[in-house]
Amino acid sequence: MNPFPIENLPFGVFCPATGGDPRIGVAFGDGVLDVRAAVGAALFPGSAPTLAAALSAPVLNPLMALGRPAWREARGRIGEILLAGKAPLLPLRGVRMLLPATIGDYTDFYSSREHATNVGIMFRGVENALMPNWRWLPVGYHGRASSIVVSGTGFRRPSGQLCPDETLPPVFGPSRLLDFELEVGFFVGPGNPLGEPIPIERAEEHIFGLVLVNDWSARDIQKWEYQPLGPFLGKSFATSISPWVVPLDALEPFRCAGPVQEPEPLPYLRAPVPGAFDIELGVDLDAAGESGPVTVCRSNFRHLYWSMAQQIAHHTVNGCNLRPGDLLASGTISGPTPDSYGSLLEITWRGTKPIRLPSGAERKFLADGDRITMSGSCARDGLRLGFGEVTGRVLPAGADPAS
Amino acid sequence: MNPFPIENLPFGVFCPATGGDPRIGVAFGDGVLDVRAAVGAALFPGSAPTLAAALSAPVLNPLMALGRPAWREARGRIGEILLAGKAPLLPLRGVRMLLPATIGDYTDFYSSREHATNVGIMFRGVENALMPNWRWLPVGYHGRASSIVVSGTGFRRPSGQLCPDETLPPVFGPSRLLDFELEVGFFVGPGNPLGEPIPIERAEEHIFGLVLVNDWSARDIQKWEYQPLGPFLGKSFATSISPWVVPLDALEPFRCAGPVQEPEPLPYLRAPVPGAFDIELGVDLDAAGESGPVTVCRSNFRHLYWSMAQQIAHHTVNGCNLRPGDLLASGTISGPTPDSYGSLLEITWRGTKPIRLPSGAERKFLADGDRITMSGSCARDGLRLGFGEVTGRVLPAGADPAS
Repeated sequence: MNPFPIENLPFGVFCPATGGDPRIGVAFGDGVLDVRAAVGAALFPGSAPTLAAALSAPVLNPLMALGRPAWREARGRIGEILLAGKAPLLPLRGVRMLLPATIGDYTDFYSSREHATNVGIMFRGVENALMPNWRWLPVGYHGRASSIVVSGTGFRRPSGQLCPDETLPPVFGPSRLLDFELEVGFFVGPGNPLGEPIPIERAEEHIFGLVLVNDWSARDIQKWEYQPLGPFLGKSFATSISPWVVPLDALEPFRCAGPVQEPEPLPYLRAPVPGAFDIELGVDLDAAGESGPVTVCRSNFRHLYWSMAQQIAHHTVNGCNLRPGDLLASGTISGPTPDSYGSLLEITWRGTKPIRLPSGAERKFLADGDRITMSGSCARDGLRLGFGEVTGRVLPAGADPAS
Repeated sequence: MNPFPIENLPFGVFCPATGGDPRIGVAFGDGVLDVRAAVGAALFPGSAPTLAAALSAPVLNPLMALGRPAWREARGRIGEILLAGKAPLLPLRGVRMLLPATIGDYTDFYSSREHATNVGIMFRGVENALMPNWRWLPVGYHGRASSIVVSGTGFRRPSGQLCPDETLPPVFGPSRLLDFELEVGFFVGPGNPLGEPIPIERAEEHIFGLVLVNDWSARDIQKWEYQPLGPFLGKSFATSISPWVVPLDALEPFRCAGPVQEPEPLPYLRAPVPGAFDIELGVDLDAAGESGPVTVCRSNFRHLYWSMAQQIAHHTVNGCNLRPGDLLASGTISGPTPDSYGSLLEITWRGTKPIRLPSGAERKFLADGDRITMSGSCARDGLRLGFGEVTGRVLPAGADPAS
């Protein structure tokens, strides 16, 4: 199915195939509306100058800053333009997609109970799988914004310190345990001034839209570095996102209840409405040397224990300011069954259960040349829409800078 | 002494007392050179258009991007202008200082061995004070860029989940264990493309200049949240920096050897020149209800175990890209003696040794209304220069968002 029907209308930033500078687009079917050109063609009569200026910007940040009433006005008018055939569309396949926003800060949560439990079992045993704080708050950490790349960008296998045997000194070399993490992220809308928390009742006003996120991870670099301050170089070499930002309004028909939360969260984390969304997620591995991709995971965004609204309320409760264009990601979204685990670490259970590929080859972790493609889609009562995909390929490690 | 002699010439961004938009300035004695105005007055004849444009920008990022040859050219010409009295200076006390750069990413290291050891003893005992990885790599984590504020900005005491007794559920409320952390940070110059590490021999080419950093910390929020992904809301409510960026060139006379590194670092962390700098640091506490400030810490940047060059080489060795204007901070700089500890956590040894104030009152951690002022200065062979100060005051907590 085509992921971009009239009910979706995701925003992105692109350059035309023929060249030209970045501008905002909206995907519709197999085409892209050049929004800046539409503004220039006077197709937004009566819109406020701030909205017209935001729609003509080279990134989505100004539009994100305007808030939901402006987003709805733009979305409504764009729908009319498209249905009336008032503007020519560029072929979707021909445009070059860029990051949709300047990402000031990137926060990565750890909001899937199944993922946190699986990792906890592997590293701390069944008895201590979930840390005591996990059921009380959406655990998260600051990620690296500079290395977020748009779908299609290859990246070099990271090198770093590895210490497989901690009775011996560490060694330097390319990561041997390279992994993907299936996540969904959202872009922040207006945000809040420093010192003024966003109450959970108003949290969703600050969700502009959602993207797929592949939080590539080097498990061996991470394992050696992460105590006591958390993940750093094990994650900061690349994080891939899908280029089309699906508006929260488009996902409204797929809103549903998330997992039961027990114990009941503290008052600042109690939301007035269900905050989960039924989004089917998939991960395909197109392994080097194989004839085509194989599906290695089918999960669902609704498995997420902590909702986006709870993440926002928690993130800002200490006064931390969110800004338009900040990206907040879910953490790996694993489901309850092994075929729904969202990382190779879990799928192969730390390499003890390798994936058998059609050729007979195996994968415990990613090999050079492997490509990972994640997809997301929603279906209900005949309505179908999707995210498209986020894809990326592992390139060989670079040279040792010290040699 | 005045911290800004002709040998210093730190860069900052300010608005004039009479109003007007942000522009770059250079501090000299008790005055500020309006660099944009100087460019406009044709005081930079022969400079490349890129340099003239960078010096006329409202932030330092474009200048940072140009690299050391351009910095030296600008610095040399500004020195000539000032010594020749060719441009009027604005009174330093009258201008309003802003953040000197748009900070894309903020990284906080943990590079003082004394600090890491002290914290380790308190939380894990003497035997396990330093984690096994600490002597092998500069441990660091991603900080929050949005909540970095310039000196003089007050901030509200953060609220959040506290769990003083982990056999009971957490409670929500204002932090009771609010602390400062004495740090020095540096702004990144040109930086590197994603996937291309900066070799340590070239690392200092990417240091534009240094500032003082107060990494305010809520110890109780941090303690409950930080496992397993590191500090988050315990730090992200505010981080204060001094407004004047002291160029690395100005600090060259104060370069010195740092602590002996044993074991010898891996090759990618071996620097060709000593990477420490002799910068005396001080912390004054102006406690609410007291008649004036008391000095609670005297430390020195040279105590830092891991150098800035090592931090850059490590940060990028996995391919992570640094961008102009990124801020990398040292972590708390504690010295070997109790009067040189750089945080209240260490000074009061987790509150067991309170600071006695002149009035007879005590401080274990910061109270509402308390002001912390950090200063930094260098002296050698008659040459003296400094950073000025970074100051900030604790305001009372805001209202509970859920009440």
